[in-house]
Amino acid sequence: MNLSLCDKLGIDYPIFAFTHCRDVVVAVSKAGGIGVLGAVGFSPEQLKEELDWIEEHIGDKPYGVDIVIPQKYEGMGDMSAEELEKKLWEMVPQGHIDFAQKLLADHGVPEWPDGTTSMGLMGWTEATATPLLEEALTRPGCKLIANALGTPPADKIKQVQDSGRLIGALCGKVKQAVAHKEAGLDFVVAQGGEGGGHTGDVGSVVLWPQIVDAIGDLPMLAAGGIGNGRQIAAALAMGAAGVWTGSLWLTVEEAHTQPAQKQSLLDATSEDTVRSRSWTGKSCRMLKNEWTEAWEREDTPDPLGMPLQGLVTSDGIRRTSVYADRGECQKVAFNPCGQVIGQINQVESCRQVMQRLLEEYVDAVAMAGRMLPDS
Amino acid sequence: MNLSLCDKLGIDYPIFAFTHCRDVVVAVSKAGGIGVLGAVGFSPEQLKEELDWIEEHIGDKPYGVDIVIPQKYEGMGDMSAEELEKKLWEMVPQGHIDFAQKLLADHGVPEWPDGTTSMGLMGWTEATATPLLEEALTRPGCKLIANALGTPPADKIKQVQDSGRLIGALCGKVKQAVAHKEAGLDFVVAQGGEGGGHTGDVGSVVLWPQIVDAIGDLPMLAAGGIGNGRQIAAALAMGAAGVWTGSLWLTVEEAHTQPAQKQSLLDATSEDTVRSRSWTGKSCRMLKNEWTEAWEREDTPDPLGMPLQGLVTSDGIRRTSVYADRGECQKVAFNPCGQVIGQINQVESCRQVMQRLLEEYVDAVAMAGRMLPDS
Repeated sequence: MNLSLCDKLGIDYPIFAFTHCRDVVVAVSKAGGIGVLGAVGFSPEQLKEELDWIEEHIGDKPYGVDIVIPQKYEGMGDMSAEELEKKLWEMVPQGHIDFAQKLLADHGVPEWPDGTTSMGLMGWTEATATPLLEEALTRPGCKLIANALGTPPADKIKQVQDSGRLIGALCGKVKQAVAHKEAGLDFVVAQGGEGGGHTGDVGSVVLWPQIVDAIGDLPMLAAGGIGNGRQIAAALAMGAAGVWTGSLWLTVEEAHTQPAQKQSLLDATSEDTVRSRSWTGKSCRMLKNEWTEAWEREDTPDPLGMPLQGLVTSDGIRRTSVYADRGECQKVAFNPCGQVIGQINQVESCRQVMQRLLEEYVDAVAMAGRMLPDS
Repeated sequence: MNLSLCDKLGIDYPIFAFTHCRDVVVAVSKAGGIGVLGAVGFSPEQLKEELDWIEEHIGDKPYGVDIVIPQKYEGMGDMSAEELEKKLWEMVPQGHIDFAQKLLADHGVPEWPDGTTSMGLMGWTEATATPLLEEALTRPGCKLIANALGTPPADKIKQVQDSGRLIGALCGKVKQAVAHKEAGLDFVVAQGGEGGGHTGDVGSVVLWPQIVDAIGDLPMLAAGGIGNGRQIAAALAMGAAGVWTGSLWLTVEEAHTQPAQKQSLLDATSEDTVRSRSWTGKSCRMLKNEWTEAWEREDTPDPLGMPLQGLVTSDGIRRTSVYADRGECQKVAFNPCGQVIGQINQVESCRQVMQRLLEEYVDAVAMAGRMLPDS
């Protein structure tokens, strides 16, 4: 098949499933693709628990872990996670916290039981991400590390590769892909603007071929808009070595997504998403709702940068996730997804999704060839 | 090849080239695709001249004409073009005209020789578009009419089809494609948000398969992001019956584009375009520059709607086009194009472009099949 990542990872199909649900990781890897656990929202203790479960259930199949390892912040020196968080909190205006809390209260989203109004820094900084990486590197089944934002620091790249694992990173611009290649990464994930979560402005159909041309031999996984086998065939036609999918797994049977949140996603059309800085401080694609609109208005606070905005909103992330069906929660819920969510309208199992992708893919390859002289 | 539009139009390849240049129309049709002349900026007299030239040079090859036939405006009754324009001018604030004129003057763009500061309504209304359509329908070589915005009125669809020609229309949303189908059009052009000119928000890789599914047998041409043969293979894999290209022809040898404007387009990356309402009043993708930024600021006029904004800016369109290399003209020039402009970096002839597209296409089809079990 000349799909080198398949050989290196020992998988049947270069279909990478980004998900926050351990069950999805296991099910996709067992179906011949590879599950990649998004770990940025986990504490090291939570990640340990998730990886214990995955290792117990995945058999001899490989999986990956996706984290965020930013380059160190200027002037942060070797501050501990606690010191860093304290310093960052001093930069957060109280008005932002009050505004976020009022939005949640006005829509009947219950408060967090222990009375706290933030989850702290989560895995968005070097200090908080390092323990997550260390945890992942203790696991034999974890064969791949992906960095969700930016090129990882050189020492981390070396550490992962020396352990016999592959390391790659996401990007939305040609120059980021070139920087990833120059840093020695094993693959890049090129995500077009239609993709979910943190995403750029250039559309997939334009971005992918340009990145393929810019990075030469280095494998590129195509992200942003992959929801069926036709889109997989299209990505491979444009030179991708495989596909990186996310939205596709939010509504599957195995996903832990709350029913109300799942319903919001199943109901959404491709016109119902927006790129918004309102949750993380960086442009992130998600379902449009009253929360995203509230942070856009001229008479309301402008979102802070990353990671400050995350300090303000992490309480909202957990509350709108756990209490998804309470009050008018869905009007202020954090529902990251790509535009491809508009073509996902029914609940399937991971195995059904994988089977469907492969069947659609075969048909699409035949369709692609219709302009050949002898067809 | 099972590409029904090719048979109906008598063309070798379902590659549609939208262009404002008659030379490009002729060269693409002679190379086996089909040129489509964008006529909205022409007066009926100018269009007559262009079509005379095309008919004289194109031999027995077919071509198309692209116009804008809006549904009639509410309350406009059977007003003449002159009455309508007078009424619309009354709705334009003087501050908008002054702001546009100052931007042009500040950047050294020469005034129009006859001292006028507007080209009037151009072909944006039913009253002004009808004479363009009538002119096109007198030409034996014109085999196709495309409507650039919205579903054409039923009487116009019937008129075109009764004349033995095909009629289609552009769209950027599934529901628009369905409306086109219900109105009885012969094809739709589905343009993703990365496309140039008037364009929506949903990316091509997400939009195309959804529209293919929504309109069943009706042929869909894929627009928005097509600049090489890999992107053509991708579009066909996703179910397109052909491709509709625009940016690809702005910089070819045959294009009348002024050298300074051509250079701006050749230099641009895919991150240098923006969707802006600043020229036509509707979201239109173009090169980002000081003009587009000036209309975004909070202390400047908000763009009017269509067709009012066009009354304000039509003088700028002709001046920045004709005087493209004067003063700092390129900083305020109207340079509509799609994100794919970033992969167009050299001047080629139309024949070279067509040849390249077909060669790249063949390679891409082979790439698309790499995940098949027996490849």
